[in-house]
Amino acid sequence: MTYRAPINDMLLALNHGAGLNAAVAAGHYGNYDSEITAAVLEEAGRFASEVLAPLNRVGDSNGIKLKDGKVTTSPGWPDAYQRWIAAGWNAVSGAEAYGGQGLPLALNAVCTEIWAASNVAFGLCPLLTLSAIEALDAHGSEELKNIYLEKLISGEWTGTMQLTEPQAGSDVGALRARAERADDGSYRVFGTKIFITYGEHDMTDNIVHFVLARLPDAPAGTKGISLFLIPKFLVNADGSLGARNDIYCSGIEHKLGMHAAPTCTMTMGDNGGAIGYLIGEENRGMQCMFTMMNQARLCVGLEGVGLADRAYQQALAFAQERKQGRAVGEKPSKSDPIIVHPDVKRMLLQMRAMTAAARTISYATAVALDVSFRASDPAVKAAAATRAALLTPIAKAFSTDIGNEVASLGVQIHGGMGFIEETGAAQHLRDARITPIYEGTNGIQAIDLVTRKLAPNGGEAVWALIGELTAIVDEVEASNDPAFGSTAAKLREGLAALERASNWLLQRLPNQPNDALAGATPYLRLFGSALGGCMLASEALAARTMEGIGDAQRYVTLARFFAENVTVQATALERTVTEGADAVTGADAVLLA
Amino acid sequence: MTYRAPINDMLLALNHGAGLNAAVAAGHYGNYDSEITAAVLEEAGRFASEVLAPLNRVGDSNGIKLKDGKVTTSPGWPDAYQRWIAAGWNAVSGAEAYGGQGLPLALNAVCTEIWAASNVAFGLCPLLTLSAIEALDAHGSEELKNIYLEKLISGEWTGTMQLTEPQAGSDVGALRARAERADDGSYRVFGTKIFITYGEHDMTDNIVHFVLARLPDAPAGTKGISLFLIPKFLVNADGSLGARNDIYCSGIEHKLGMHAAPTCTMTMGDNGGAIGYLIGEENRGMQCMFTMMNQARLCVGLEGVGLADRAYQQALAFAQERKQGRAVGEKPSKSDPIIVHPDVKRMLLQMRAMTAAARTISYATAVALDVSFRASDPAVKAAAATRAALLTPIAKAFSTDIGNEVASLGVQIHGGMGFIEETGAAQHLRDARITPIYEGTNGIQAIDLVTRKLAPNGGEAVWALIGELTAIVDEVEASNDPAFGSTAAKLREGLAALERASNWLLQRLPNQPNDALAGATPYLRLFGSALGGCMLASEALAARTMEGIGDAQRYVTLARFFAENVTVQATALERTVTEGADAVTGADAVLLA
Repeated sequence: MTYRAPINDMLLALNHGAGLNAAVAAGHYGNYDSEITAAVLEEAGRFASEVLAPLNRVGDSNGIKLKDGKVTTSPGWPDAYQRWIAAGWNAVSGAEAYGGQGLPLALNAVCTEIWAASNVAFGLCPLLTLSAIEALDAHGSEELKNIYLEKLISGEWTGTMQLTEPQAGSDVGALRARAERADDGSYRVFGTKIFITYGEHDMTDNIVHFVLARLPDAPAGTKGISLFLIPKFLVNADGSLGARNDIYCSGIEHKLGMHAAPTCTMTMGDNGGAIGYLIGEENRGMQCMFTMMNQARLCVGLEGVGLADRAYQQALAFAQERKQGRAVGEKPSKSDPIIVHPDVKRMLLQMRAMTAAARTISYATAVALDVSFRASDPAVKAAAATRAALLTPIAKAFSTDIGNEVASLGVQIHGGMGFIEETGAAQHLRDARITPIYEGTNGIQAIDLVTRKLAPNGGEAVWALIGELTAIVDEVEASNDPAFGSTAAKLREGLAALERASNWLLQRLPNQPNDALAGATPYLRLFGSALGGCMLASEALAARTMEGIGDAQRYVTLARFFAENVTVQATALERTVTEGADAVTGADAVLLA
Repeated sequence: MTYRAPINDMLLALNHGAGLNAAVAAGHYGNYDSEITAAVLEEAGRFASEVLAPLNRVGDSNGIKLKDGKVTTSPGWPDAYQRWIAAGWNAVSGAEAYGGQGLPLALNAVCTEIWAASNVAFGLCPLLTLSAIEALDAHGSEELKNIYLEKLISGEWTGTMQLTEPQAGSDVGALRARAERADDGSYRVFGTKIFITYGEHDMTDNIVHFVLARLPDAPAGTKGISLFLIPKFLVNADGSLGARNDIYCSGIEHKLGMHAAPTCTMTMGDNGGAIGYLIGEENRGMQCMFTMMNQARLCVGLEGVGLADRAYQQALAFAQERKQGRAVGEKPSKSDPIIVHPDVKRMLLQMRAMTAAARTISYATAVALDVSFRASDPAVKAAAATRAALLTPIAKAFSTDIGNEVASLGVQIHGGMGFIEETGAAQHLRDARITPIYEGTNGIQAIDLVTRKLAPNGGEAVWALIGELTAIVDEVEASNDPAFGSTAAKLREGLAALERASNWLLQRLPNQPNDALAGATPYLRLFGSALGGCMLASEALAARTMEGIGDAQRYVTLARFFAENVTVQATALERTVTEGADAVTGADAVLLA
């Protein structure tokens, strides 16, 4: 079956749960015309259903081929990519000065979910280009921008991000690729990078690589890393393609999923060194990375959301068709679709509720990023930047964790058929498995949340958010709608648990940092469970007052399910954080015995 | 890296946590010599490490091939199978009257974990044979037993179980394969079966199929199903192989995992009908199935345990070798193995603790089965049968759920390498994904737990177990060992939550069965979390008094970790059961809007 973008759910999440409407009303989006949101998403949904979704299985089955340094993508992929750029999808949030459409990141975030849901391995290519655009736009010279930015924004050329080396994964500071200064102001780069997504492919004429390397006189660690732009083909003064640069794909990985997305080993310097151009200042490459980290991590979170929604749609359709057994009380001669079984209903609701919560958290991160860039009031900008920084690790880790959980439930609902590859349910699980790993493992996200987002200013960012969420809970309570069940009570418990856990971590961080770090992952889960529950409740409240949304009660039931089945775990997670550290600290006795 | 059976952990779990020592002391195992347990397990571990483990990746990469109805297994597999039967591993728990060694099921359960850990796709073949042996032994005629039992027990021939058809999976009663009575007292069977594990292969001369089919005059549903023994090759009076029977492999599945285990479509009747022999009585085939269900489900649970342990061993080794970053407070110039990071420690402990709990639950199920067969006192036998029936769905579902969770954590610890197939971590996740599905989905296990195991006699079986577990908690408290941390308190909360949830379900079952069914899955998880925690605590208590076990404190820390990080979720799970049903019941408004 194909994928259909759930436009109504997305609009409710974006405009209400994530606060786009309020931000537009407050003037932070200038003269953005909210009317176009739905139209863009409808078009994106159509493109995804018609062009991208049909290639998802094709790409998984065919994978990619490497021969003589050239990568051939799956049948139909180069053509789909050309349709993609022709339709302007690569340029949605690109700068207007360079041919982009200048639309909000929040709108592009929804599109990113749509691309991931329809064909995550395809959507990965523009994600990397987006990071390249961000780095170049923020730190590149005018000359480099004039040569490269327009073609990256249009998608005529794609971009790669090259950080990882065998000994330098999460520990970027351990990288060894080296750069030498050339007389003409350019550089020659030598070394080998691994795990380079779309490092080589046949969908565009040129590929623009962004490579981290060290200068000979650079300090050790992360303070000695510089960022270089290294085109696959050099670009002549007239913009035409020149000589082949000394950067080649020397191997591709055989992976669990994302079969259609080439993961390349890139070798530089076999022929005198790859010609590179410095981005930003020497030895300040990590700062350039930090610039783009928020958006890249958010995009991976959106992959989790998209994969979860795809898995849900497929499982729901299966559960409505597949007949096995019968509802309680029905005659033995009858055969009912398995969706009648309460246990199957629970799995489907779990899938849908988790997906919806991760979606709104991710969209809210995008809105905060937008406001941090677009608002005119410096205080508003700063607050939005703080909010975006706080939400980013949650959007990344919570969404990708639930992406895996939801995809696994999707397999489960299919029963034996779920284990058969042609069903397609297993592909979502395989594809999803990388998302908690790349762009900073989810463990690193959790540590980032505790040490860099919670810790500053006595937890100020977290207290501000909890204040806003509490107001939502008050509203749920004030609604007196019995359909909310115990939603308000569960959310209040969740926020109280979050507050206590936050305080505990703040107390431990200065002098017992290992105790705090031991609780980072359950703390992030607790955060997502409380935050997601409040956001779904706020959407349900909004839906109750809206025209034309159909049965608004379904959003109430969804929020209720999440609060009663997911947020309810908050207290246990809090206690894991605050009472579980000693056992973790004592782990060596167990693990190394 | 290869697999090493954790013999000390296994012995502690089997003898103490699972209660083998107590059962032997009570005389339920006759003159079983406990001294041989360790010797058998050491030998099994050696065979697994030397013969089976090296073929695990080979089988995954090569898979199997079907040509002209013949299945070729992976290189080295037929030879390994011959070594397997020559070493007597197929016959461990087989009846002595038919050449088996007559050893306890509990011992075979540990071996089953070892086979699954070293090579789950290989181990699956003897698992199916074991079910065939059970069915034949319990319900077959003396004539059939004399012809087939010895060769199945030795493993010279393998067995299959053929229930599933496209329209009849969990709903076995919907099957349509038909059987006609022949004049000579045999039957002719026609139809197509799917998902038949090792339905065809090249490791033995003959395969003995056990097939469910309907007689022409059979009642509808499960009451009209008969069980037939259908050999691939007919057997002559002198025991030699005769004509090829009319049952053929017409297709194999391309699966997410278990690549080396053929999953066959079997076609019967293209040449006049497969000659079959009735097992048990006509129309009583389902009763024969129920006979073997406990053991088959337990064995799948043990696959979950084995896969979890294999994933853990691999992740632990990686975490000790892979250097990234450094411990808090270390110099930036230093690079530490990632096991120093508290978040990695947490993941490893989670893997180990979950595995250990699932292991003991599974072994305890095997001990209960043994006692139900072996004890002389009818009351003891009956109580043990009730205990085995209660534990079986938990052993199956909890162990296979955690098998997937642990395998996924194993991938996560490997970072980007975890997504690369050659690392091997991903294979465990792919292989594990079928275990919550086959032999009764975990949803069906949960429903079985609630409706058939909890419900009878006002919950008597559950209350008896909670009583025993409470005694363990009392002992933990009485130990006054500060290393237990809040273990006793957490376990007591867990048991209280289990008791309340059980009572709530018992109240709802008669008149609001859907409310009870909606909570079945979280109830099973709650049960496993409380039960597993108590069992690990009992092992820690035992270890503290034992000589020669090394640092016993590690078992205390492990029990503590489980109680503080897993059992702590009990109250939330209870509330999901008792407060979450309304949202599930209201699901249609959400799902079908």
